[in-house]
Amino acid sequence: MSGIEVLFFDVLGTVVDWRGSITAETRAFLKRHEAEQVDAGALADAWVGRYDASVDPIRAGTRPFVPLDILNMENLTATLAVFGLDPAALPQDELEDLNQAWHRLKPWPDAVEGLSRLKQTHIVAPLSDGNTRLLVNMAKRAGLPWDTVLGADIFRAYKPMPEVYLGACSLLGVSPDRAMLVAAHDYDLDGARLCGMKTAYVRRDHAADPSKIGERVVSADWDYNASDLVELADMLK
Amino acid sequence: MSGIEVLFFDVLGTVVDWRGSITAETRAFLKRHEAEQVDAGALADAWVGRYDASVDPIRAGTRPFVPLDILNMENLTATLAVFGLDPAALPQDELEDLNQAWHRLKPWPDAVEGLSRLKQTHIVAPLSDGNTRLLVNMAKRAGLPWDTVLGADIFRAYKPMPEVYLGACSLLGVSPDRAMLVAAHDYDLDGARLCGMKTAYVRRDHAADPSKIGERVVSADWDYNASDLVELADMLK
Repeated sequence: MSGIEVLFFDVLGTVVDWRGSITAETRAFLKRHEAEQVDAGALADAWVGRYDASVDPIRAGTRPFVPLDILNMENLTATLAVFGLDPAALPQDELEDLNQAWHRLKPWPDAVEGLSRLKQTHIVAPLSDGNTRLLVNMAKRAGLPWDTVLGADIFRAYKPMPEVYLGACSLLGVSPDRAMLVAAHDYDLDGARLCGMKTAYVRRDHAADPSKIGERVVSADWDYNASDLVELADMLK
Repeated sequence: MSGIEVLFFDVLGTVVDWRGSITAETRAFLKRHEAEQVDAGALADAWVGRYDASVDPIRAGTRPFVPLDILNMENLTATLAVFGLDPAALPQDELEDLNQAWHRLKPWPDAVEGLSRLKQTHIVAPLSDGNTRLLVNMAKRAGLPWDTVLGADIFRAYKPMPEVYLGACSLLGVSPDRAMLVAAHDYDLDGARLCGMKTAYVRRDHAADPSKIGERVVSADWDYNASDLVELADMLK
């Protein structure tokens, strides 16, 4: 394992607490719009839970690539309607601001320290379905010390499409066996491994896509299993 | 000018002293190989001076894109031969190491402070003909605090091809008029302005492509003219 030069990180759920962050911003939004009868956690999970299905047509090639910001907005308006709120009756700039909550996702408590330590010995970069600007805004706000930022819009593809993993390795100038994906999601690690990359699983409570809870099967055979990014830094030092 | 969100930086000559750095590494290389009779500065300038012409076929579409690392190696072997050194007689790993000197280019003395200050109020990113790994290695070594790194291999094109400037604005989620290119080279600023971006000229002694010295005409009508990146930070604060 000593030949690993580059660590790529899944971000949504692995580095940041997407469900918790979206719930908090949704709750504030509902309060501002006097809709506190709506369950913020349920609405947030329904919104986040549409993400995977909304990406599927792009993965399948039946829809041209659009960045996550656009999918999130489509999913937000659909979710609000399901919860009895008419998106057309809400100010557009307020909807845009709520959608920007994805640019403000908060890191898990260990993330900044873990990444800072891992950066001392490796190149560290997100490899996320988020678009590049979303990831840059998030990093500036949260202090995530990336060496560079790789959003899905660079590859015009979403994980686990192989062009994402292989394209990232090519841009960082490494063969896949000298790169490792760090992620809390098995399907993502599977995609990386199929491309020849090393894999590190990080356990995260509340990290799963809400639409997939119950489906998750943790494999025991990833190259590393860590409870958080600080523990991973200990393992790799 | 208050609407500028993203600052893109030319790197070779603008942020780092390419000619000085390459000369120093070339001199050490010649010493190791008992070829101190060769003028290191002349060889380095000849090597750097081939860069622009070697990119031209890619700009013209008559050669498929290859990253700068590959062009640099082609130019290095051609230059050594011109100076009476047979590249085939030199160890390949030593040639690779000298070629990697481009990953180790040293920043101008004001660069880290200037970028650090500009990063407080703007997104800062290189927009360079260098490949992404070259720029990441350089940044880690020199402490350049980029928010993200955009190499030519992301766009598979070289400046001043418009797809580089427009692609960079798209990835960073800004319209061109909310982005500014900072560069020491007029042709680069011209390319950015043609795409609708703002422009900041930074005066750098010894920054010009050696093949173009004498051709350079400094325009007075860039949006900003600064003597270095610290002065630019003063202007934009």
